[in-house]
Amino acid sequence: MGLAVFVMLAGCSAERPAAVPVAPEVPPAGMQYLYGSGEASALSIQAYRALLANVAAKVKARPVDSVVLAQETSLDDPRFEPCGTKPFAAVFDVDETVMLNIGYEYHAARTGRGFDAAAWDAWEKTGEDAVAPVPGADRMVRALREMGVTVVFNTNRAAANAGPTIRAIKAAGLGDAVHGETLFLSGDDATGSRKDGRRAVIAAKYCVVAMGGDQLGDFSDLFNGGQSVTARRAATMQPAIAQMWGNGWFVLPNPVYGSGLKGGFDEVFPADKRWTAPANGEN
Amino acid sequence: MGLAVFVMLAGCSAERPAAVPVAPEVPPAGMQYLYGSGEASALSIQAYRALLANVAAKVKARPVDSVVLAQETSLDDPRFEPCGTKPFAAVFDVDETVMLNIGYEYHAARTGRGFDAAAWDAWEKTGEDAVAPVPGADRMVRALREMGVTVVFNTNRAAANAGPTIRAIKAAGLGDAVHGETLFLSGDDATGSRKDGRRAVIAAKYCVVAMGGDQLGDFSDLFNGGQSVTARRAATMQPAIAQMWGNGWFVLPNPVYGSGLKGGFDEVFPADKRWTAPANGEN
Repeated sequence: MGLAVFVMLAGCSAERPAAVPVAPEVPPAGMQYLYGSGEASALSIQAYRALLANVAAKVKARPVDSVVLAQETSLDDPRFEPCGTKPFAAVFDVDETVMLNIGYEYHAARTGRGFDAAAWDAWEKTGEDAVAPVPGADRMVRALREMGVTVVFNTNRAAANAGPTIRAIKAAGLGDAVHGETLFLSGDDATGSRKDGRRAVIAAKYCVVAMGGDQLGDFSDLFNGGQSVTARRAATMQPAIAQMWGNGWFVLPNPVYGSGLKGGFDEVFPADKRWTAPANGEN
Repeated sequence: MGLAVFVMLAGCSAERPAAVPVAPEVPPAGMQYLYGSGEASALSIQAYRALLANVAAKVKARPVDSVVLAQETSLDDPRFEPCGTKPFAAVFDVDETVMLNIGYEYHAARTGRGFDAAAWDAWEKTGEDAVAPVPGADRMVRALREMGVTVVFNTNRAAANAGPTIRAIKAAGLGDAVHGETLFLSGDDATGSRKDGRRAVIAAKYCVVAMGGDQLGDFSDLFNGGQSVTARRAATMQPAIAQMWGNGWFVLPNPVYGSGLKGGFDEVFPADKRWTAPANGEN
């Protein structure tokens, strides 16, 4: 969901200038990186290679626990749903996790508008010809299915658009999905964009051996509990959570939109890590 | 190296308006993501977990080949330097690979200036108190050394600034480096920012079991051969190269600066993946 670029057009009259969207001359840096760079394609191939190796080991030696957090738990002392003898599954977000929304982001960048809910809804309904797999994702989901691991999608696309989303997933080379079985959507329950409820439904049926996402909310709603930007980053680095990254929880890069693009100077740059160029370095 | 934000200040006179740097109200999105988000910290922890698992396997069963490309080779049909009985090493870029330049980027964002060579040189000389490890990198280099793998840094920081760069690496919790032995810099040979020559020197002495970088040039100069943005991304996805990501070559995210932030609309968005919102979705 695109970045807004607004330029104040300052006139000479006393009227207040109007803010109008202006399309940039080149795509925003985050889009250049995610949709255009070899660095980002390499990152996603790398993530999905690690996922396959991790899942292969778990399929060989069944784990005690699922990688889905238990419903009453905390990030400080996380507990997980039990695997029991349930069949294996891996759970993926869709947008910018396994599927690139190239067509929508082209539209967003070209028009210079920010995220627009109506345009996004139209995209969900009509975008199937303008998506692509995240590099490595198509091969990865095929390999999981060959291992006997069910691929489940858990996305915040709308339940009302289940049909076209199933077609888009197929068009991106990610295979078949069935709403309520291998596809869970916003509107499936009463918790809106929160995904823990849907994860609990999936974990009741499956031993979930891996989750993939581009947003921390694809792993636990506890990351979206209103904590500060600084505390949220710190939460990913504490030992009990840090040990999950690349080991059951797999992150895909997304510097284009989402919960990672937040924070003022005070939050992004710790107070003890600031630097001012010496006077003679400013010339 | 920061993003320039210029705003044209349109006056009422006939004079041409001057472009002056204006500091943004919040850090650019790429900086929010890389320095502030839990998504980016999780990504780097994940990458270094995969690296350690991959290297541990190679230390146990010595590979025939190093992960450094042979000097006369191509991305289409890559050949690698031989390992022989040489001691093990892992080779890392420094900036935004193992060390975050938080202080410099704070300066760049706060002033609203783009990359400034004089300020960057001053940063190399004086920045040691305002750096941090990339999340997971400090633990990773310690673990490699415990496995008997020599950690070698290959960076485009200037040879003239070897002393302060060694201090900055130490300050970031990454241990000791010795110029010409475990630290290679721009100016060490006559090829400027190209790293293949330095990699050849390292691979002559070591069996290189892993390389880490945030730029494709941290793996091979062949990625910087002047090919189009599209061709460069495609090169990372062809089978012989794709099999290296997460398997000897490890990428760290960097949407703030570098060779990944290139490309116009025609290069970033393939012609067959564009989308226009239907008229009723534009309201």
